[in-house]
Amino acid sequence: MVRIVGIDPGLRRTGWGVIESDGVRLSYVASGTVATDSGSQLSVRLAEIYEGLNSVLRTYQPTEAAVEQTFVNRDAAATLKLGQARGIALLVPALSGLGVAEYAPNAVKKTVTGNGHGDKAQIRAMLRILLPRAEPDSADSADALAIAITHAHMRRAARLQQKLKQNGLGGGRLAGAIS
Amino acid sequence: MVRIVGIDPGLRRTGWGVIESDGVRLSYVASGTVATDSGSQLSVRLAEIYEGLNSVLRTYQPTEAAVEQTFVNRDAAATLKLGQARGIALLVPALSGLGVAEYAPNAVKKTVTGNGHGDKAQIRAMLRILLPRAEPDSADSADALAIAITHAHMRRAARLQQKLKQNGLGGGRLAGAIS
Repeated sequence: MVRIVGIDPGLRRTGWGVIESDGVRLSYVASGTVATDSGSQLSVRLAEIYEGLNSVLRTYQPTEAAVEQTFVNRDAAATLKLGQARGIALLVPALSGLGVAEYAPNAVKKTVTGNGHGDKAQIRAMLRILLPRAEPDSADSADALAIAITHAHMRRAARLQQKLKQNGLGGGRLAGAIS
Repeated sequence: MVRIVGIDPGLRRTGWGVIESDGVRLSYVASGTVATDSGSQLSVRLAEIYEGLNSVLRTYQPTEAAVEQTFVNRDAAATLKLGQARGIALLVPALSGLGVAEYAPNAVKKTVTGNGHGDKAQIRAMLRILLPRAEPDSADSADALAIAITHAHMRRAARLQQKLKQNGLGGGRLAGAIS
């Protein structure tokens, strides 16, 4: 059994979602959003994200973490803001000794909806199927759950690949098996 | 007496410098560089910056903090990296309850060298005059000391301004007095 926290970082809203995987089935544990006050000092907002995520880790005790790779765009000021929030999202699980995987938004969409261009509605629809008990309170916590699901699939794929190797089978077959 | 930590954040090297100001004179306390291993996971490197700065705060117990505003450039990937490191630099003093001031690189250069385009050599030269005991171990720790000096000057200027206001004098005179 592995318990995974997925994090979708943002300075204004950081989504988080915790799921469990027994290697075959996924189950929903909890999800939520850490919101910060845009009127506060930047350092205070980052501390709020830190405290919020720390509290999630203390409460739900995940064993692995996955963070969405920030979409790097042309707006340098926005990229910087997101980078600062993302730094905290990567830091908090690392300080608790958790491995932190990173997934590009495309990889997450592809895992959850089957193609790299799935929109928010498609992600929500797949969440209802994969984690029927989930009630994400924001688009950010829905994304965070999708990231956690992506990590569960990726780590299972990596394990399968390892097993196939031990049995003298190539990885080529696996690509078909998990696609 | 105020004890100020200046921080020049970077993913590879984060410079820090601690100074004291009694409102008139500055004195050097300590400075150094937190370096991270570029071969490590991003989350681990951010945790190294966190631990390093935390240790500086525990050891030197500053009462205020100042962080350089990141230079936002056109390289979005570099901006994102810097943003992540900068998030940690803002977070650590905020978690200790310190106010965190931010200064643009130009403001720091102008304060320390007299114009906004002072180069690294000029900053070093002024450091030798303002903090003769300082022996920064890198360009980053030299910059961090320059940021701490900038904060000492800015807070003194703000206090003077307040006093002048209380005495019914405008702020216009002050601009001349501290330039």
